[in-house]
Amino acid sequence: MRRPAEDMPIGVELDCGTHAVTEQEIIEFATEWDPQYFHVDRDAAAHSNFGGIIASGLHTASIFQRLAVTGVYTGYDVIAGKEIQSLRFLRPVRAGDVLSCTIVVRSVEPDGAGRCLVSIAGTLRNQLGRPVLELEVDSLVRSREEA
Amino acid sequence: MRRPAEDMPIGVELDCGTHAVTEQEIIEFATEWDPQYFHVDRDAAAHSNFGGIIASGLHTASIFQRLAVTGVYTGYDVIAGKEIQSLRFLRPVRAGDVLSCTIVVRSVEPDGAGRCLVSIAGTLRNQLGRPVLELEVDSLVRSREEA
Repeated sequence: MRRPAEDMPIGVELDCGTHAVTEQEIIEFATEWDPQYFHVDRDAAAHSNFGGIIASGLHTASIFQRLAVTGVYTGYDVIAGKEIQSLRFLRPVRAGDVLSCTIVVRSVEPDGAGRCLVSIAGTLRNQLGRPVLELEVDSLVRSREEA
Repeated sequence: MRRPAEDMPIGVELDCGTHAVTEQEIIEFATEWDPQYFHVDRDAAAHSNFGGIIASGLHTASIFQRLAVTGVYTGYDVIAGKEIQSLRFLRPVRAGDVLSCTIVVRSVEPDGAGRCLVSIAGTLRNQLGRPVLELEVDSLVRSREEA
């Protein structure tokens, strides 16, 4: 059973687990969705500012989403995402990185009939503990009387 | 040859082409990156607020990126994306939708040695001309003396 928005714990850092990034995954994602040379071409990327292949920002954001969904969101009665307020790519993500995800529910506010607007801050850190992605996202989640 | 940031046309709406969305693509993307029931489970999604499967917001954002990369970005000497300032999911995207992408370069400003910060506004519209995604993104692009 999916729980209503009012059950979401506000202000608590929630651990959503980890994801190991491979070169194959970086190249496959970017070949389909973000085919810039520094994401898909090992030889050309060696001459980029980063000296090698880095993950697409949308790939990194998708890793965040996968971890947040399986770690937290599926326990609640989410209607849909509404807006990502800010998505900051703080450091390059490379093959071999192991990314860990945490989220904090910032607020849960009534937003029309039977639903709440839930604001979440999320962070992905690499295996050195350094943030690679920070974001703030607003989603709609069913409220108790509707859930 | 990739052109420098200073060659990007400011204030002009650039057409980046279209992408036809299929149910298979919606389900495949979401199964890997955003496995919420309203993206992956046709039967369960029939009982959601949208009455059927809708595309993941990250899938929609990835469609935007693919069109923007192949339509415009690959002509310029992009270093990396820096921040997506805002990513607004305005309407559901469903199988059968044909999304068209436009971008406008808002500004190109020097940003340290040999590079510029480029601010872009992008829009995806469906086949009815209605916006489904709007975003603002800042990227780093090599400047003329380095390109």
